[in-house]
Amino acid sequence: MVDMRWQRPPFDIVRAAHAELLVSDLEASRRFYVDLLGFVVTAEEPGALYLRGYEEQVHHSLVLRQLPAAGGPAAGGGPGPARRPEAQAPDGGRHGPISPGGRGEPGAGLTSAPGQVLPGTTQGHVLPAAPPGRGLPDAAEGQVLPAVAPGQALPAAAHLAYRVAGEDDLDRLAAFFQERGCRFTWLEPGDEPGQGRALRVQDPLGFPVEFFCRMERAERLLQRFDRYRGAHILRLDHFNLHVPDVQAAYDHYKALGFRCSEYTATDPPGPDERLWAAWMYRKPNVHDVALMNGDGPRLHHLGFWVSDTQSVLRACDILAAAGWADAIERGPGRHGLSNAFFVYLRDPDGHRIELYTCDYYTGDPDFEPIRWSVNDPRRGTFWGHAAPASWFEESSRVLDLDGRPVPVEPAKLRERPQTVT
Amino acid sequence: MVDMRWQRPPFDIVRAAHAELLVSDLEASRRFYVDLLGFVVTAEEPGALYLRGYEEQVHHSLVLRQLPAAGGPAAGGGPGPARRPEAQAPDGGRHGPISPGGRGEPGAGLTSAPGQVLPGTTQGHVLPAAPPGRGLPDAAEGQVLPAVAPGQALPAAAHLAYRVAGEDDLDRLAAFFQERGCRFTWLEPGDEPGQGRALRVQDPLGFPVEFFCRMERAERLLQRFDRYRGAHILRLDHFNLHVPDVQAAYDHYKALGFRCSEYTATDPPGPDERLWAAWMYRKPNVHDVALMNGDGPRLHHLGFWVSDTQSVLRACDILAAAGWADAIERGPGRHGLSNAFFVYLRDPDGHRIELYTCDYYTGDPDFEPIRWSVNDPRRGTFWGHAAPASWFEESSRVLDLDGRPVPVEPAKLRERPQTVT
Amino acid sequence: MVDMRWQRPPFDIVRAAHAELLVSDLEASRRFYVDLLGFVVTAEEPGALYLRGYEEQVHHSLVLRQLPAAGGPAAGGGPGPARRPEAQAPDGGRHGPISPGGRGEPGAGLTSAPGQVLPGTTQGHVLPAAPPGRGLPDAAEGQVLPAVAPGQALPAAAHLAYRVAGEDDLDRLAAFFQERGCRFTWLEPGDEPGQGRALRVQDPLGFPVEFFCRMERAERLLQRFDRYRGAHILRLDHFNLHVPDVQAAYDHYKALGFRCSEYTATDPPGPDERLWAAWMYRKPNVHDVALMNGDGPRLHHLGFWVSDTQSVLRACDILAAAGWADAIERGPGRHGLSNAFFVYLRDPDGHRIELYTCDYYTGDPDFEPIRWSVNDPRRGTFWGHAAPASWFEESSRVLDLDGRPVPVEPAKLRERPQTVT
Amino acid sequence: MVDMRWQRPPFDIVRAAHAELLVSDLEASRRFYVDLLGFVVTAEEPGALYLRGYEEQVHHSLVLRQLPAAGGPAAGGGPGPARRPEAQAPDGGRHGPISPGGRGEPGAGLTSAPGQVLPGTTQGHVLPAAPPGRGLPDAAEGQVLPAVAPGQALPAAAHLAYRVAGEDDLDRLAAFFQERGCRFTWLEPGDEPGQGRALRVQDPLGFPVEFFCRMERAERLLQRFDRYRGAHILRLDHFNLHVPDVQAAYDHYKALGFRCSEYTATDPPGPDERLWAAWMYRKPNVHDVALMNGDGPRLHHLGFWVSDTQSVLRACDILAAAGWADAIERGPGRHGLSNAFFVYLRDPDGHRIELYTCDYYTGDPDFEPIRWSVNDPRRGTFWGHAAPASWFEESSRVLDLDGRPVPVEPAKLRERPQTVT
Ligand SMILES: [Ca+2]
Ligand SMILES: [Fe+2]
Ligand SMILES: [Fe+2]
Ligand SMILES: [Fe+2]
Ligand SMILES: [Fe+2]
Repeated sequence: MVDMRWQRPPFDIVRAAHAELLVSDLEASRRFYVDLLGFVVTAEEPGALYLRGYEEQVHHSLVLRQLPAAGGPAAGGGPGPARRPEAQAPDGGRHGPISPGGRGEPGAGLTSAPGQVLPGTTQGHVLPAAPPGRGLPDAAEGQVLPAVAPGQALPAAAHLAYRVAGEDDLDRLAAFFQERGCRFTWLEPGDEPGQGRALRVQDPLGFPVEFFCRMERAERLLQRFDRYRGAHILRLDHFNLHVPDVQAAYDHYKALGFRCSEYTATDPPGPDERLWAAWMYRKPNVHDVALMNGDGPRLHHLGFWVSDTQSVLRACDILAAAGWADAIERGPGRHGLSNAFFVYLRDPDGHRIELYTCDYYTGDPDFEPIRWSVNDPRRGTFWGHAAPASWFEESSRVLDLDGRPVPVEPAKLRERPQTVT
Repeated sequence: MVDMRWQRPPFDIVRAAHAELLVSDLEASRRFYVDLLGFVVTAEEPGALYLRGYEEQVHHSLVLRQLPAAGGPAAGGGPGPARRPEAQAPDGGRHGPISPGGRGEPGAGLTSAPGQVLPGTTQGHVLPAAPPGRGLPDAAEGQVLPAVAPGQALPAAAHLAYRVAGEDDLDRLAAFFQERGCRFTWLEPGDEPGQGRALRVQDPLGFPVEFFCRMERAERLLQRFDRYRGAHILRLDHFNLHVPDVQAAYDHYKALGFRCSEYTATDPPGPDERLWAAWMYRKPNVHDVALMNGDGPRLHHLGFWVSDTQSVLRACDILAAAGWADAIERGPGRHGLSNAFFVYLRDPDGHRIELYTCDYYTGDPDFEPIRWSVNDPRRGTFWGHAAPASWFEESSRVLDLDGRPVPVEPAKLRERPQTVT
Repeated sequence: MVDMRWQRPPFDIVRAAHAELLVSDLEASRRFYVDLLGFVVTAEEPGALYLRGYEEQVHHSLVLRQLPAAGGPAAGGGPGPARRPEAQAPDGGRHGPISPGGRGEPGAGLTSAPGQVLPGTTQGHVLPAAPPGRGLPDAAEGQVLPAVAPGQALPAAAHLAYRVAGEDDLDRLAAFFQERGCRFTWLEPGDEPGQGRALRVQDPLGFPVEFFCRMERAERLLQRFDRYRGAHILRLDHFNLHVPDVQAAYDHYKALGFRCSEYTATDPPGPDERLWAAWMYRKPNVHDVALMNGDGPRLHHLGFWVSDTQSVLRACDILAAAGWADAIERGPGRHGLSNAFFVYLRDPDGHRIELYTCDYYTGDPDFEPIRWSVNDPRRGTFWGHAAPASWFEESSRVLDLDGRPVPVEPAKLRERPQTVT
Repeated sequence: MVDMRWQRPPFDIVRAAHAELLVSDLEASRRFYVDLLGFVVTAEEPGALYLRGYEEQVHHSLVLRQLPAAGGPAAGGGPGPARRPEAQAPDGGRHGPISPGGRGEPGAGLTSAPGQVLPGTTQGHVLPAAPPGRGLPDAAEGQVLPAVAPGQALPAAAHLAYRVAGEDDLDRLAAFFQERGCRFTWLEPGDEPGQGRALRVQDPLGFPVEFFCRMERAERLLQRFDRYRGAHILRLDHFNLHVPDVQAAYDHYKALGFRCSEYTATDPPGPDERLWAAWMYRKPNVHDVALMNGDGPRLHHLGFWVSDTQSVLRACDILAAAGWADAIERGPGRHGLSNAFFVYLRDPDGHRIELYTCDYYTGDPDFEPIRWSVNDPRRGTFWGHAAPASWFEESSRVLDLDGRPVPVEPAKLRERPQTVT
């Protein structure tokens, strides 16, 4: 039995706000996200694109950052913002315990050749020296990434960010994570282009999570229909995470003030059921973050809101017309869970994007989470379609605060919804 | 210049939740709302229908109540729930100052013959004696409604209800209104079918506003697509009110914790501009309540959320096919203000219903209200279509806590957006 | 190389017009076609339903006929109209006249228990009479149908009908088939309810094909949007046939005056390519009949036109909501071939129905057929989705003029597009 | 009573195929048609754009030709192809041969300054030559166009073209028009870019009508969804003409083999009713040409097929977003007559374009025309919306074979459907 009671912590997380993905070929990614899907470019710099949807008034909801080519630093002087570690933390005061080995470059341990197909890598990666100057001190050169399972090493996400209601929420969140012994660091305004002061933490689940309140405003294009292209992406809606222990992840997010809208549990229902997945929200729709049983911590997908079912269908038509039909992994279809109309796409590096629309309002005080059996075929696709095995197995790795892939632990539950083999 | 700063009162209003409309022919209303638009009937009793949308898990978001026929009491023993006036209020204690003339039956002063076309009534109404037993004491029989302008007397709305987050918010709201000298009364659980304890107040703007936290759950039909009919109405979204003094109404709702998403102001922009209309929200989309310059207090329309533009078009097709094309007053079209896709319908009594979909998210901490000039033709319909004059002039009367029409005061501003004459 | 030149025979076939399917449980079929998909019932009689779409002004585009229960005649005095064998076969010979022993009852050799799931039957069926060669007289009764592959024996279709421009086209068509040695019979007006004089022939491909000109008019409900239900089925669009020799079938339809819009051929393109499938039309959209390589003669599916993509999605939502998600076999999706948006459904007996919309105009004099390689993954679903194996393997049997299943011959080509196993 | 019997002339007109519009500012027109509506540019030359829809495999369905600036020839050596007058008119007589003075430059008598708003012109135009009677020789140069009503003089259309099934249909059509005493001329292949041999005639109604069979093929972009822009225009569907005598126009088109799908007649129905409008088709949907009561001959609008209702709504959104909301004249809405979903737009010169989708199939042999009363408010817009007066009054002038505006005669019927004043 799952405890669904809502907790009210002393900070106010508003919603899932943006994510940073590492890519091996920024031009290929630009073709996918900008030319085909129609994301709006707010800013670009050597090695990075800052993107948003048509509705968003913020500088970015998606950052694409070029991985440095193998054997050298990234173009443009290094990927990612400078991190500013707390200078003083003897009493454990304003920041968490950063290990001496810390490195501040996202993906510092990752390399790629442009165009390289990253999923399916089977061996550990030799990490070159991190670039001097902007990172944390004392990194050991040539460190070998612990062996990971085949296909699990890349793609990788550098951080996931939630927006908070006020600046002081950040300080209360820092205290929250410090209590839990989590390592964290502060970003000053501008460390990430367009973003105010931010707290980055490696959360108890292993994810690189950021909290921020202020972001530079960008022109809202919601009614610039003459500029709409592609899938008519409106805004970031949610993160979906592969976690090895859904119950633990659920408890963590509940402590952050998230409520549960729907969940998947093992059969039979009752005291011995286990939580297989949970959809949790701060803004009152189905979710800001979903937690799914799987090897993790890994980022399963980013969900972007589009205005209607037609946008989802059109995205498929456009991708296929442009020769990118392979990017369509699952759907289009209607979700049982969330009721949303969706399609899952894979970007050139294998990062998974969901186009998502038409879920429902969850803000009433007596809202009760909806239970689905892991064995209900309508849970995933209401129409009964099985998901491909890749959808259950493949996810993006996440980086720690030093930019190194966080080791992946196997999923605790073996139950698995139906798949197409 | 409009002060858009957000206030945080000590109570938490969640959203616009339901409304009660008085109708002259309940079967005609059933045909419109249930048979043609597809509202779901949760419960019916002699003289009343309790309706909801497919997404709603609550007992009702719309109550239709039969007006008593002229010269006699309503079928079923009188329209509306029993009101429980505070027995003791000598010191103005737990309830507001109820005037001696108080009457407890909604629409007690209104009569109609079935099928009568109510809008356009030009004379004052002679109010018959209120039924004994359930009303408030001491009503004078045969009281004449103060003369109102042509077409302004009927239809009428009995109450508009907001949901709150907790039971104790009700008490804090009672204190809030008491401070402002507003008359109020309490409903016990079940006084209104399916509803918990509720506070009813005649607010400073003259509207009969209800606050409640608990409501009996009804089956959620969101995924019972096999039962969808008509316009695929999902849920109540907002109220739109005609108020003579928009600035005063704005200040009142701001004090209740509402934020402003968009507003219309007179030209030229600057210190002398006047607020012509304001869209205000608690749940983070464009609005729970809109305040528009006009003779008031009157209910301009109820906005119901539908899932997509197709539902709006289909509603028009269905109405026209059934011989009800006259019910389509304005649209379909795209709003400039709110960006929603919409159509306005008039029910058999002239109550106005909006089908509304696809607005946007407003929950970010730095959300800034959007200004529109009252003279911008794209403000109402983004495509530039003028609204018919009826849309600006006609509204439903509202009743006071005794069930008598609240007198209407003329709008303070004379500016008017373009109309079709 | 395929000869795509258009022939102009002396008759004018207008379009694919209707089909008759045998069903094992008429009430289950009614639930599927009428209650869920929204077909309109023009007429019903014991053991049969006559259905049409909202746009159709004809008595029926789909006839559902109850198979007699095992061991007895069908309810209502036997399924199907009385046949009137040709009194005078001009050459007294091999075609036209049906011997007294020719039964003429569709499905005469088939029985079922109500609710029986017919697909997957694995044993031969005991038939009262089976034709030697191609359905000529003097069949021995009680003959066992030659063994067919599992799942291939039932469901069965009794006839497929094309409409012609004038009554005399029927006579010219009779002459055409007589020249080719095909057995045929005439139906008098009313033999099939609502239908005028009709020619039924077992065509050279083995299909029971009917031609008629006149049909009783039914009320056109195209603008009775208030009566629309389900998938908003507008009209029959096409037949899709499994034939063992596509080239032979193509040549036959070309001789009937059909043109080719698109076709699938084996690789490599050039003189040795083989025709794997062909889409052929009389009315100027993509097809009235499609011919696909497969064991045959069998009816692969009936295609019904719906007004838009939303109707296709809604059909899936409705079926799933009603517990019929299993009826969704393939899609929704965009066809590469035809560009139509589609979904394939299986009715309670396994008959396949396609909901189909948005193909294109083919009537220009220089229209050139479009070639697809059988190995192009976008051919079937433009988005690259593989079809399930069932879609390629399972089809409805067809009956000869005596109502006995026509033997199935294996497909000539072994090439097969990608499937999900 | 209208005679709806179908005639079968000895030629085969396939469909409405393309039109040529004269524009005052080609760059403004390009912005409207190409940038905003998304027409595809097949070819351009100084002073002309050749456009098509995404589905079309033909060189053009719309030609935009720059009017020469006042006081000089058009850029690029003159608008329009060279005309080749018939060398030998068989009877040496009243038709066929164009006199030496007849120039054949479309718009030869028209001038404009770029950006000039043409509708609303109130004075007569000085024309180099205007035909007495119906466009036969010996026009006096410098003649003043007979005074026309305000707003009736411009914009102008140079020709409307129908495609025929075979080259020899052109000769049979020439004979047909010669019999009727119509002036005509031949265009050789390439005289109009991309077009084969063509017959141009000033038809008995006064319109410059062209017939052709062959046209250069252009790449079909139906499945290049990645290139779709704007309104997703697929193909030309129909012409709509203002004619002063609908009955005469109806009889003419019936003689050309057109059938009638729907018509509007005056009340009361019966022997004295008059034909107010007629929708006539060759391809089996609602129409290739509509004939409406009005001052004429004038071109009321060109109808272009779009794929779905969403395309219509999106076109409005795009135009409004780009600041062109004024281009939206009427709709979007559902037509009663034709059942199509539509919007009417006005281009920068005032030419009217309809975006049109979802009408129905008319090819059955017993199709019976549908009668509408001119007073039925659902006739125009099924939802009951009145059309603006401009929609009934304003149309594009048409040119004769010498490029001079054809005089306009007043409509015979005074009945007029409801309008918004
Ligand atoms: Ca749609
Ligand atoms: Fe960030
Ligand atoms: Fe209430
Ligand atoms: Fe038939
Ligand atoms: Fe032409």
